[in-house]
Amino acid sequence: MPAADFQLLIVGGGPAGLTAGLYAARARLNVVLLEKGVPGGQVMNTDWVDNYPGFPEGISGFDLAEKMAAQAQRFDLTTRHCEVKSMDLSGPVKKIFLEGGETLTGLAVILATGARPNQLGVPGEKELTGKGVSYCATCDGPFYRGLEIAVVGGGDTAIQEAVHLTKFASKVTVIHRRDELRAAKIIQEQAFASEKIEFIWNSTVTEITGNNEVEGLGLRNTLTGERTALAVKGVFVLIGIRPNNEMLPLDQLDNDGGFIRTDKEMRTSLPGVWAAGDICSKNLRQIANAVGEGAVASIAAENYLGALK
Amino acid sequence: MPAADFQLLIVGGGPAGLTAGLYAARARLNVVLLEKGVPGGQVMNTDWVDNYPGFPEGISGFDLAEKMAAQAQRFDLTTRHCEVKSMDLSGPVKKIFLEGGETLTGLAVILATGARPNQLGVPGEKELTGKGVSYCATCDGPFYRGLEIAVVGGGDTAIQEAVHLTKFASKVTVIHRRDELRAAKIIQEQAFASEKIEFIWNSTVTEITGNNEVEGLGLRNTLTGERTALAVKGVFVLIGIRPNNEMLPLDQLDNDGGFIRTDKEMRTSLPGVWAAGDICSKNLRQIANAVGEGAVASIAAENYLGALK
Repeated sequence: MPAADFQLLIVGGGPAGLTAGLYAARARLNVVLLEKGVPGGQVMNTDWVDNYPGFPEGISGFDLAEKMAAQAQRFDLTTRHCEVKSMDLSGPVKKIFLEGGETLTGLAVILATGARPNQLGVPGEKELTGKGVSYCATCDGPFYRGLEIAVVGGGDTAIQEAVHLTKFASKVTVIHRRDELRAAKIIQEQAFASEKIEFIWNSTVTEITGNNEVEGLGLRNTLTGERTALAVKGVFVLIGIRPNNEMLPLDQLDNDGGFIRTDKEMRTSLPGVWAAGDICSKNLRQIANAVGEGAVASIAAENYLGALK
Repeated sequence: MPAADFQLLIVGGGPAGLTAGLYAARARLNVVLLEKGVPGGQVMNTDWVDNYPGFPEGISGFDLAEKMAAQAQRFDLTTRHCEVKSMDLSGPVKKIFLEGGETLTGLAVILATGARPNQLGVPGEKELTGKGVSYCATCDGPFYRGLEIAVVGGGDTAIQEAVHLTKFASKVTVIHRRDELRAAKIIQEQAFASEKIEFIWNSTVTEITGNNEVEGLGLRNTLTGERTALAVKGVFVLIGIRPNNEMLPLDQLDNDGGFIRTDKEMRTSLPGVWAAGDICSKNLRQIANAVGEGAVASIAAENYLGALK
């Protein structure tokens, strides 16, 4: 067996990475989890999680992240606070290069670096996130029963979620910067058929207004320059999601627009390398499937390590 | 759109089915979950769950199942206590035939009927389950640090888990009814190389002894008929897992020895039919990936239903 610092390196400490770490620590692998921030990933910044099974009344993202981290720690998972600069995953010994010059080596790697939603970058957005500004309709839709809301975007996700949100909201206004949608025709048809959905074309959001909760949006027509205001109680910003892949060797890994391709067993295109959670190319990005993928990747890595000579 | 009683029928109320139900109820689908016993599935009979993320100190299987069921109920998931006799899933309207003669129809179906471990069927087994008798090494291995235990079985899972259990136990005795293992050669080699693993060949377990916790096994040599006793603190019965598929139309569904084949999005070979949890053909059967699969199947079904004409 080749020499390396660790049997398993896990990159990223969100739900996928923490679950992979929990399973690896319980299996007593020589494992380290690398995280540049606080364990928990995007969950840390999620106000309230209603759809992670096991919490009947829901749980704050902060509390859930802390619980997951504490559980992994109970089984002595080593976590290291560091920033990964780059990697070489091509050979049997995987190399992870840290900011500051240090190199860590391992025989197996699980990539769980996550993703982040694209933001509008307008005044009020950051302050009101979790207070009416949301990036996930599946997660937060039910909070808006009987209210008027807006969806920003024109792709598959935005329009599909606009339709989904009509189950809760009294009115959904879709704001799109062009005069036609990018979404698949069949999804567009559903949206155009809904009496609850209105469209504001050729417009961008210039600000999100409100004190402690969203009260409205400032809009600008991109053709005329005209500025208007729209009163809404919530705004879903659905303008794409970006993989946290700046440190990944994308030339070595089969990927789909920067999201890592895996099979059902979370194997990547490289032997000894698995991926789990939001960094994967997939349809649904939820805590529930992130933890499942973390468990599957970890057990697969354990079996791989057991068979190494 | 064809007429049916429900948009979505979910068959089975373990973690996969309950999570599918939670997501479907939150999406306000016209959905019903069918369960013949108490919601929770195998989890209900699991003494202690240490590796479902979110519970730092672990949680009893009973409590976790109750929490999952209560969460789905909070979003008004309709569950129905009934036994499914058979199904016809081939057409656009799926038919589920109940014991007693009633037929339920739906436009989409999620199969989450689960699986059950094969049991030895010997005295003491049932009484001592969760008290030293276990069917899952990944789940329960860490409870046996420094103790002597037995593994019953000779296949891939049994021998792989025997190796895994050497990380905790001081000694692992593998009891196999034949004189050679069925497990893959590479797994056998790991087991034979371990100083902690001993083998008792050509032997079956005739009873599990102990008051309130396992104290030992009664063994019988299948060649000589000789009876012996083995003192152990735990016994892992790893002689295969059986899909709960008696009510499934296996002639209509692509399957692997009775376990349903799916793709990454949990689609089965039939349009409008998904599968999730232990009934699926897969490598790992844990609560963590069951809930992930339930969420993925549910969102996929929602999107399918939205696109129906």
